[in-house]
Amino acid sequence: MTDRLERAKSLLRDVHDFPKPGIVFKDITPLLGDGDAFVAVLDDIAARYAPRGVQKILGIEARGFIFGAALAARMGVGFVPARKPKKLPWKTDRAEYALEYGTDAIEIHQQSFAPGERVLLVDDVIATGGTAAAALSLVERQGATAVGAAFVIELGFLQGRAKLPDGLDVYAVMRF
Amino acid sequence: MTDRLERAKSLLRDVHDFPKPGIVFKDITPLLGDGDAFVAVLDDIAARYAPRGVQKILGIEARGFIFGAALAARMGVGFVPARKPKKLPWKTDRAEYALEYGTDAIEIHQQSFAPGERVLLVDDVIATGGTAAAALSLVERQGATAVGAAFVIELGFLQGRAKLPDGLDVYAVMRF
Repeated sequence: MTDRLERAKSLLRDVHDFPKPGIVFKDITPLLGDGDAFVAVLDDIAARYAPRGVQKILGIEARGFIFGAALAARMGVGFVPARKPKKLPWKTDRAEYALEYGTDAIEIHQQSFAPGERVLLVDDVIATGGTAAAALSLVERQGATAVGAAFVIELGFLQGRAKLPDGLDVYAVMRF
Repeated sequence: MTDRLERAKSLLRDVHDFPKPGIVFKDITPLLGDGDAFVAVLDDIAARYAPRGVQKILGIEARGFIFGAALAARMGVGFVPARKPKKLPWKTDRAEYALEYGTDAIEIHQQSFAPGERVLLVDDVIATGGTAAAALSLVERQGATAVGAAFVIELGFLQGRAKLPDGLDVYAVMRF
């Protein structure tokens, strides 16, 4: 990890008992508030995936919008938002995923991707991997090709990677 | 308006009866999905505010994250997310604003801005201006200086500009 990325990592703030007791939440807002750290994270992801011919970036609401959209602009490609149900105004495709108790879902607009289009998924954190797997299933449903999944933070002990398709290029800038 | 911006504007999709009957919603997702159009919008805002010495960008959840974060990275400055209540993990400052019936609120983390820091507010749409005014009040509460408020779309008939502080440099890329 470069000095710029080490510095970015040092800006993460541990918040105890969020969103519930016993959880230590990695707060990215001090990193975002530092322009150099934010750009260092984006450039690290861009450098890894630029050779793969990425044509669109799919970002997951809400923190995935922050990194995904900024990365799309940096790479000069389009951005597609994956949103919670009923937030998108037009016709959608929906994928459900399991929560600890029950299920939730995310949606993208229909025709977000052209057949064969090369898509990079971006989110702030990979934890259990359920949301990312659901988002990737929507890419496939629209006939596009997922070329990778990039995260700022990987919570490795939750083994979220195991939920993503075999052979996918999965990358995390920072691991815990 | 340049040809690139005219093209970006032409990509907006009118969605009727969203979020409720009688409303025509300006859907930005086709614009976002086009890398050149997305970057044209960002560059237009960046060119206007670069001379003002912007040090941080404040973006409003959730679509304001898309433009605000991408603009922050493009301008090489930090990004601060303004979120719906209880979404931010650490200590927050909160501002309420009026809805048609009742009130809502947004929050930013405490110490998001240093005293005197120069802040540009970014959101996708200015409608009635209530959310933007609330966000600007949080900038002021933290002792920072709002140097402008930039929107991709202004719904002029709702007169949201009138709710923002006198003398603020308010800009919209596209007006309806």
